[in-house]
Amino acid sequence: MNVVVIGANGQIGKHLVNQLHAHEQHEVTAMVRKEGQKKELEDRGIQAVLVDLEGSISELESAVSGADAVVFTAGSGGHTGPDKTLLIDLDGAVKSIEAAKNANINRFVMVSAFQAHNRDSWADSPIKPYMVAKHFADETLMQSGLDYTIVRPGGLQNEPGSGKVLAGENLERGSIPREDVAATIVEALEAPNTYQKGFDLITGVDTISDAIEKI
Amino acid sequence: MNVVVIGANGQIGKHLVNQLHAHEQHEVTAMVRKEGQKKELEDRGIQAVLVDLEGSISELESAVSGADAVVFTAGSGGHTGPDKTLLIDLDGAVKSIEAAKNANINRFVMVSAFQAHNRDSWADSPIKPYMVAKHFADETLMQSGLDYTIVRPGGLQNEPGSGKVLAGENLERGSIPREDVAATIVEALEAPNTYQKGFDLITGVDTISDAIEKI
Repeated sequence: MNVVVIGANGQIGKHLVNQLHAHEQHEVTAMVRKEGQKKELEDRGIQAVLVDLEGSISELESAVSGADAVVFTAGSGGHTGPDKTLLIDLDGAVKSIEAAKNANINRFVMVSAFQAHNRDSWADSPIKPYMVAKHFADETLMQSGLDYTIVRPGGLQNEPGSGKVLAGENLERGSIPREDVAATIVEALEAPNTYQKGFDLITGVDTISDAIEKI
Repeated sequence: MNVVVIGANGQIGKHLVNQLHAHEQHEVTAMVRKEGQKKELEDRGIQAVLVDLEGSISELESAVSGADAVVFTAGSGGHTGPDKTLLIDLDGAVKSIEAAKNANINRFVMVSAFQAHNRDSWADSPIKPYMVAKHFADETLMQSGLDYTIVRPGGLQNEPGSGKVLAGENLERGSIPREDVAATIVEALEAPNTYQKGFDLITGVDTISDAIEKI
C-alpha cells in the first residue's frame, strides 16, 4: 500500500513513517507543515509533501491523490490551545476525510483518543474540549462511507514498544507506548476485519497481529 | 406550540422569549443557566427551567420533554473563549439535538451563523474556530432526521427590528437587528416549507411572513 501519513512530524507520526518506510509491502508519503521537516525526511529517502492542515480541501486532495490509504495522526493531544483543537483536530480531520473521498481513497485510519466514542467517560475530563473535537471528527468519519478504522489509544508513552497490546471496544483506562500505537496501525491497514470499526488500545498480553485478528 | 428556548438569556434569546410569551398561539419555556435568571423570568410569568448546557443529555432531555419545538440560540458569538465554543456552540448544540430526538420532539430551529454552511466563505475569517463549531453543529442537525430549520443571520444589531428582511440560501453579507432574527424564528416555527432547510438572513425589503413563504 501507498500510505499518506497526515501529521507525520507528530510523535506517533514519526514512528509510523519510520515503520512504513521500513516495511516491505508499504510505501509512505509523509505530510508535514514545514519545509525543514520535508527536507529532513527527503534526506533520509522518505517521500514528503508540504501541506498546511488549515488550508483548503483541494490542497489536501492533491497531496493524498494516488495513495491507497490515509492515516490521520495530526494534533498534539489535549494541551494545545483550543483554537487549534477546533482547526486541526476537528476541521483538519474532517477536511482530510473529504480530501480522501474526493481522491477516491477508500482506506482511512484515524488516530483518535481513548473512549472518544463514549461521551459519559469524559463528561468531567479536564481535556473535554479536545474530546469533543475528536468525537465529532470520528463521527464524521463513521458517516463518510470510507473503509475506516478508528484507533483510540490510552495514555501515550515514549517508552520503546513492547509489541504486546490489548484492543477492544471498551477498555479500562491504561497506557501504551507510541511505538506500539504506530505498529498497530501498520498491522490494521490491510486487515478488512478492522474496517468500519473503532477500538480502544492499551498495553496488554496479545501480540499486535493477534489483537488485530480479534477485532 | 410549546417552545423551549435554549439560551434564553442570550441577546436573541431574550427577544425570542418575549415574542413567544406575547404570542397567542405559542407557549414558551426559557432554559437558563442561573437561578437568578430563572427567578426573574418567573416573576414576569414566564415558565423557566434551569439547565447547564455543559451537563448531560438526560438533564437536557428532562428539560425539553413535553415541548413541541426546540430553538437553540445559546452561545455568544465568535468572541467567547474557544473552549466554550467547543463545549457550548458545538457540543451543547449536539446534545440539545440528541435530547430533542430522545424526547420525540421533531421541530428544531437552530440559530447558526451567516454562511456557516459555506466553508470557503470563512477560510480566512478571524472567527474561523467559531465557524467550524457552528458548521459541525448544523451538519449534525441536518443528519438528525428532525424537522430542522437553520437560521444564519448576518451581523447582529441591537437596533429595534424593522420587520423587513431578506432570507436566502446564499446572500451577500449584511446585518440584521436581533429582534428581527427572533421574529423570523417565530414565523418559521410552524412553516413546514422551512423544514429541512437553512437560510442566510439579513435586513431587506420583504415582510417577515413573505420572506418565510419564499423559503
